[in-house]
Amino acid sequence: MSPSVSPAVSAPAVLAELRAEDVPDVAAGAAVLGTGGGGDPYIAALLARAALLEHGPVPIVPLERGALADDAAVYSVGMMGAPTVMVEKLPPAEQPAQAIRVLARYRGLEPSHVACLEIGGLNALLPFVAAAQLGLPVLDGDGMGRAFPEVQMVLPTTYGVATTPMSITDEKGNGGIFDTATPLWAERLARTATVEMGCSATISLYPMTGQQARTSLIPGTVSLCARIGRRLRTARAEHLDPVAEVVDEVGGRELFAGTVVDVARRTETGFARGTATVAGAPTGGDPAARTHSARLEFQNEHLLVALREAADTTGEGEQLLVTVPDLICVLEADTGQAVTTEKLRYGQRVRVIAIPADPRWHSEAGVALVGPRYFGYDTDPVRVAGAGAVR
Amino acid sequence: MSPSVSPAVSAPAVLAELRAEDVPDVAAGAAVLGTGGGGDPYIAALLARAALLEHGPVPIVPLERGALADDAAVYSVGMMGAPTVMVEKLPPAEQPAQAIRVLARYRGLEPSHVACLEIGGLNALLPFVAAAQLGLPVLDGDGMGRAFPEVQMVLPTTYGVATTPMSITDEKGNGGIFDTATPLWAERLARTATVEMGCSATISLYPMTGQQARTSLIPGTVSLCARIGRRLRTARAEHLDPVAEVVDEVGGRELFAGTVVDVARRTETGFARGTATVAGAPTGGDPAARTHSARLEFQNEHLLVALREAADTTGEGEQLLVTVPDLICVLEADTGQAVTTEKLRYGQRVRVIAIPADPRWHSEAGVALVGPRYFGYDTDPVRVAGAGAVR
Repeated sequence: MSPSVSPAVSAPAVLAELRAEDVPDVAAGAAVLGTGGGGDPYIAALLARAALLEHGPVPIVPLERGALADDAAVYSVGMMGAPTVMVEKLPPAEQPAQAIRVLARYRGLEPSHVACLEIGGLNALLPFVAAAQLGLPVLDGDGMGRAFPEVQMVLPTTYGVATTPMSITDEKGNGGIFDTATPLWAERLARTATVEMGCSATISLYPMTGQQARTSLIPGTVSLCARIGRRLRTARAEHLDPVAEVVDEVGGRELFAGTVVDVARRTETGFARGTATVAGAPTGGDPAARTHSARLEFQNEHLLVALREAADTTGEGEQLLVTVPDLICVLEADTGQAVTTEKLRYGQRVRVIAIPADPRWHSEAGVALVGPRYFGYDTDPVRVAGAGAVR
Repeated sequence: MSPSVSPAVSAPAVLAELRAEDVPDVAAGAAVLGTGGGGDPYIAALLARAALLEHGPVPIVPLERGALADDAAVYSVGMMGAPTVMVEKLPPAEQPAQAIRVLARYRGLEPSHVACLEIGGLNALLPFVAAAQLGLPVLDGDGMGRAFPEVQMVLPTTYGVATTPMSITDEKGNGGIFDTATPLWAERLARTATVEMGCSATISLYPMTGQQARTSLIPGTVSLCARIGRRLRTARAEHLDPVAEVVDEVGGRELFAGTVVDVARRTETGFARGTATVAGAPTGGDPAARTHSARLEFQNEHLLVALREAADTTGEGEQLLVTVPDLICVLEADTGQAVTTEKLRYGQRVRVIAIPADPRWHSEAGVALVGPRYFGYDTDPVRVAGAGAVR
């Protein structure tokens, strides 16, 4: 533990409800777990705050038996598309609830709980917008423990929970249902519809029972977001090192510090893809000396980070530091605020941290779904070395 | 009336039911009204024949009050996509009925009748496949009186009948529902899904009441197909001129005869687009002398035909003969069999005929939906001159 870490944070480890005043912390934590993607939570935070002020706090239900009935009707909701577009195209406040209503009507089964499928980014907060309007609780958990770019990339897929029926809606009043042969077909059809709808859409998918949610979701991740956000906020107030606070909270590891010297990004097939280069030094070195550079590859989210010495112009000595499924997060050097890939800019001073993914992502089924080879990189996953366990 | 036309054809003008043995005539007639597109009815004819042999004849119901109740639940069904693909990718026999079932389940309203939206091409027969399996009658009419390339291009659109909810299914087991803000959004979303599904899909759309069907469909077009097909067959048996028989039956006009000398086609955005050139002479001249050439432009269907003299190499004297909404059909010179755009080949001897569209297609709303300007041609519609009325 770094000496600058706060010795004791006296706040509840688990959130029992989400109030309007809790939203900024959850948004800050979700931005970190977004690993550069997931959409900047800023706009979702505005919508969530407004919904909670209008409808009151939303109860948060743990996944444990006793709190969540086996036969609960759980509906997940979130936005799909290129984060670069999502942050510019505000969804109407009614759209997340509408996506759930469309799916519930198709299934003929009223929802009892709302869930996050993706805790990283704006999809951590949109379920609260829907839940507040529908008068429903939200589960304390999610399907990824981070953000991933494609809809089938959730642990429930590895448990055999069906992706569809899913609903898709846009801000123009278009809606639809997909009921597909495989999870990958759900991704393909929903992705082309999303692109046609203008590169962003709101979807409700993976409808599941309480028992399926308990088995296949990652528990406690809404509360984890709140804790990350709280430690960032406290660290700034108390002049601690915010990045070290985050690393401690999530059991992660700082990899690299430096200055962004190049960003190449393109929006294609509905994704924000690109490469960013940071010049500086591995943690422990002097970032200003620029002895090394770190290359980040992303598709909405950061997929891998590789290190080379500054003198290595061909890159033949480059070394993979971490890849998916583990989390790679770029934080502002001083404030610890997460920087999304669309906000990466030349000259930014940043620190790169890595966080171990839920261990189930390192199973054979998990790696097949979200490992580096799926994204076209010819390597086995490289895991965060020397990191502590996620609390 | 041409002297070679049969003086009297002693067959019923209206079909009361479709039997397996009627299928070839309806298919031949539908191919003519397909105006080069709509998909070669060959495969749909095989499916329809098999379904009728298994389930028995399908009753055909006229649109008149007394035959069709105002509150009937009418479901249309057909294939969407590039005809070049449709003829190579046989839909499973269950798929049209499945498309109707998916939509009926979504609406919570059982179908009482099946309808054709597009009488030109394979979509004249697929509704009979579904109707035979579902034990339902088919209406004697359709939404176009021909074939058109986009889903919103039906007369019901001009009457305010909603395009959606619509269902979409493919042969891989994928299904979906679209419920869109406008008819054009239905086309856009269904088209991208169709392309993703492999350039063909089966859809059920424009669900309507019996009263809406009576008002907005074109009456009698299933029977018209049967009559066209019968006259083609009789003409071949009795050594009459099949093309003249068709022209007489539909109140059309022969425009040009000659030999195909060039075809350029491309499959893009889910459509078969292209240009064909026929060298020959306007009707009355000697095709072998090649004094003129006719240029046909198509997007699945023929959109326009233009005439120029053979000596006019720049095309500056080119003259538009006929454009959409009127029907432009290319028939084999000797047999009168319709030639679809994907079967146009260098060296084919063909005759080009034109048929007046339903007069409602020449209304302001009709021309806005399917006139030449919609397809990118800077001209008002050019109508068939000197043609008789459709019987």
